[in-house]
Parts: sequence; C-alpha cells; structure tokens
Amino acid sequence: MPQPIAIADIQRIMRAGVPLTASWGVEVLRAAAGVAVLRLPHAAELLRPGGVISGPALMGLADAAFWCALLSLTEGRDESLTSNLNISFLRRVPPRPILAEARVLKRGRTLAYGEVNIRSEGAEDVLAHVTTTWASSGAASGASLGAGAASQG
Amino acid sequence: MPQPIAIADIQRIMRAGVPLTASWGVEVLRAAAGVAVLRLPHAAELLRPGGVISGPALMGLADAAFWCALLSLTEGRDESLTSNLNISFLRRVPPRPILAEARVLKRGRTLAYGEVNIRSEGAEDVLAHVTTTWASSGAASGASLGAGAASQG
Amino acid sequence: MPQPIAIADIQRIMRAGVPLTASWGVEVLRAAAGVAVLRLPHAAELLRPGGVISGPALMGLADAAFWCALLSLTEGRDESLTSNLNISFLRRVPPRPILAEARVLKRGRTLAYGEVNIRSEGAEDVLAHVTTTWASSGAASGASLGAGAASQG
Amino acid sequence: MPQPIAIADIQRIMRAGVPLTASWGVEVLRAAAGVAVLRLPHAAELLRPGGVISGPALMGLADAAFWCALLSLTEGRDESLTSNLNISFLRRVPPRPILAEARVLKRGRTLAYGEVNIRSEGAEDVLAHVTTTWASSGAASGASLGAGAASQG
Repeated sequence: MPQPIAIADIQRIMRAGVPLTASWGVEVLRAAAGVAVLRLPHAAELLRPGGVISGPALMGLADAAFWCALLSLTEGRDESLTSNLNISFLRRVPPRPILAEARVLKRGRTLAYGEVNIRSEGAEDVLAHVTTTWASSGAASGASLGAGAASQG
Repeated sequence: MPQPIAIADIQRIMRAGVPLTASWGVEVLRAAAGVAVLRLPHAAELLRPGGVISGPALMGLADAAFWCALLSLTEGRDESLTSNLNISFLRRVPPRPILAEARVLKRGRTLAYGEVNIRSEGAEDVLAHVTTTWASSGAASGASLGAGAASQG
Repeated sequence: MPQPIAIADIQRIMRAGVPLTASWGVEVLRAAAGVAVLRLPHAAELLRPGGVISGPALMGLADAAFWCALLSLTEGRDESLTSNLNISFLRRVPPRPILAEARVLKRGRTLAYGEVNIRSEGAEDVLAHVTTTWASSGAASGASLGAGAASQG
Repeated sequence: MPQPIAIADIQRIMRAGVPLTASWGVEVLRAAAGVAVLRLPHAAELLRPGGVISGPALMGLADAAFWCALLSLTEGRDESLTSNLNISFLRRVPPRPILAEARVLKRGRTLAYGEVNIRSEGAEDVLAHVTTTWASSGAASGASLGAGAASQG
C-alpha cells in the first residue's frame, strides 16, 4: 500500500515536469487514489477577446490532470508516458476559471487508461471530455512521449 | 474559386487568434489548398531537461496547423471550430525544431476532417500523428470550441 | 416533451436498421432519457475457442447501443448518423453475456456526443470504453454514415 | 529477416481467428511489409435497403485489416491485441464492394500504431478513416483484447 503523497508535492512535480502548467498558474486542488482535480485560472495568453479558453490550453490542462491522477497512485514517481489523448469539445467555454477532473479507470501492467472532464468552476456542464491512454515507462521506451515526459525525474 | 491568401496573412491570423502560437514563435511555412506546414522552434518553456518537447506543446501546434490548413481554403475566414482532436505519440521527440504538416482530408458542409503529422525538422519519422474533426461555425454554434474559435473574438 | 417510446419499439427499430444486431440476438434491456442498455448473448460466430468476444462484435454492440440511447430521445425517429467512434479495450472479455450501457452526454443542434461502457453481465469492471460523436441527419448529409443510417431505408 | 508469408495463409489465419470475416466473405488481396488490403463483398446482412454498408461492418473490416498488416510482419504469428480503434465516417457508402487498406506506421517493442483507409472498390475517395493502436501480447496481457486475440484460441 503506497503512502499517500501530499497535494503540494504533486503540484511541485507537475510544475517542474510541465513548465507550461507553472506559467499558466495551474493548481492541483485534489490528487488521491487515482483522481485529480486541477484548476486553470484566467491567463491573458490563454484568453480570447471574448474570454474563450483555447483548445490548446484545455488539452494541456487535461494531459497534466491525468498525469497528476497517476502520480497519486505511485507516491509521486512518474512511471508512464502519454500514448494517446482524445478530446471532444462539447460546449463553448465561458470566461471563468476551468476545473479538470481526471480519473484513472484502468491501470494495467503496461497501460493505464482514464478520462478527464473539463468544467467551468462552480458549474455542472461538461465543456470538454477527454480519454487518454498512458504507457508505462518501460513499455513506452520505444514509444510515446507526452506530458509524461516529466518522467525524466 | 477563392483567391489564395498569403502565408504571412495566415500566420498573422493564427498568432492573433491563438496567442500561444505567438509566444511560442510558431511560424507558418506553407499554407495552400488545404495543406499547411508549421514550425515550432525551441522554446525554454516547452523543453524538458532532456530536450523533450511536451505533449501539450505538440497538441497546441497540431490544432493550430489544422486551423491554418482550413484558413487556406477560406481566404482566411475562420468558419470552423475544433470538435475533436485525437493524438497518438509514437516516438520520443529529439531536441530539434518541430514541423507539423496538416492536411484537410474531407471538407463537408458542416464537418471537416483531416490529419496532422508531426516530425523533427529535416527528419522523416512521424513522432506524433493527429486526426481531427472541425465543425462549421454554424453547425457548431451549440457545440465545440477549439483554437478555431480564436478569431471569433 | 416527447412521448416515451416503448423499449420493444426501439429494439424493433434497431434490429430492422442494423440486421447484424438481429442475427447476433442483441436485446434492448433499457432505453429512456438518453440512456440505453443492450445485451449481447453468446453467439458462436462471435466467440473464440477461449470464449473471447471479438473486437468487431463489441464495436458493433457499442454503436447500436448509442443509437438506441438517441432513439430514446426522439420518440424513435432516427435523426443522426455516426460521425466518429473511439473504443479502448481495457480488459480480457470473459465467456459471458455482454452488457453495453450507452449515455448521451451532450445533444446539440447538429452534434451529439456520449459514451458507452461495456461490461460482462453481472460484473462491475469496464471491459471496453467507447466515446462517440453523431451528426444530425441534416448536418451529416454531406458527412458521416454509421449504424445510425440504418433507418434510412 | 522474416520469411514473407503467403496471402492465402494470412486469409486463412484471419478467417479462423475472426469468424465474422469468414461469414462476411472478406478476402485478403494484399498483405506484405506492414501493408494489407482487404475486400468486403456485398452481404445481405451488412446492406441497407439503400445499399449502405453499416458502421459495425466497416469497423470490423478495419480491425481485421490492421491485424493482417501486422501478421505480414510476423510470419503470421499473432503477437498483438487491439488496444484502441478510432474511426471517422467521412462520406456515405455507395452500394459497392469495399476495400480497406491498412498500414503499420509504427511498430515498437510493446505498441504498434497505424491507419486504415476505407474506400469503394475502384474509387479514390476515402469513406472512412481509422487509426488504431495494438499492444503486444506480452504488454497487453493485463490489457486490451480485440480481433488480434482471435488466434489465441
């Protein structure tokens, strides 16, 4: 049974591994037992004149969120790399902070799979839905490399 | 038959619409007849200690590249929004500038579909492969919102 | 407010529209308010010597399940066509009947999106997870065509 | 350097492993060096009154086609299982035999990735486009199971 890791430690690992999340001011609100919730505040660079959050920002947030969900299962050791990420944009994104809730649905010996739901802070509607597959560092050594590239750590 | 639009104009529209591409220094090398090639230079924020490009950077580049491919078919008018983006990370990304080649495979009345191949500059191997579906602004008014929405503001 | 449609009617529409579901003996157990549960019994053609259900069978079941979920929202009128289906196979499929639970997560004017969870009857583990996007017949007239096209005949 | 395997042998392995392909009369036209072309003839069960091929039929054909492309690289030994399959339906399917051309784009130690283009026999337009990831039997032992599992029995 792994020791639970402090949320602050996961946020530190995330920001060191994926500097974009640091520059965007992404916060880790929850991260335990394969579930992580991240918050993306307003960032001029990510906003549109209409206050719309860009697709790239949402994809980056989702990738980082699932990575944090995995870190919560490994005492913070990064052992996997993004193999595939599939995002569907469902609704227009209102001008508010964004929450991404990532959940590990399956963690096998060499592949992990899960989903990420993206919502506005304080709202119920899912704005974007993500499914993603990660490969263990070993399995992926000849393969894929996403945000999980933080596995350098 | 639409007038061809200058590559410089497409780059200007892209950078205004998706500020991340401006801050990352993304250049549009080609954009005509539904095919666009974008270049992502080294950027400290996007690099890892090992010189690895992050997944979020590659996803953002791919989204922008397909948007430019569509703009090349519409005289620069942005008429569509990202509905879905699916990326598979195939190989480790060496420390070099990245090229993304986007191609519109199908452009229907309400949906456009295509792919993006991501390679290192001067190399043949595909490092990441993307397929993406975009909805026309009309079709998507109740739907999806990606980088393509950028120039709506 | 549409009239609820009888489950038996949805099963009839499904089997007439997608003959494979009839030959496979697929049953509609539930179909209301955008949620449908279908059951795939053992079928020699779909089984392996080890009792494994084939990927094609699971994909066909999932496609039909989401169609039934949509039919439950339209009084049985088929108004949409499969645009995209993305399936991830998570666990080995034991030799038992299969249940597919489809849920409409978003229904816009021109695009519908949802997920399908595939399990063994009486078990909790998700064996395969599907996300799918459907386009309304109007929106899709120049576009996609999946099982949803069944009722066009 | 593996011995090339006869197309007839790959067709036999495919039909034994995925009985649906036998009942549908799927033929293997080409299979060498990671590329396979399969032909799906008219089949009453797969046709609509309007002569439309069903989504489930196209998904099954694509899954089998990529499996054959992999078999062409392994002297017919089945060493992998479907992990993910993503299909986009691009155009209405006219009443003609269907060809699926599968291509292995990346074959790593534990993951293989490729695409399948589906066309009408004798036509150029892509009707449906598929990307798929397969895991090696070893890597997938705790994981995914698609048509590739067929020959395990």
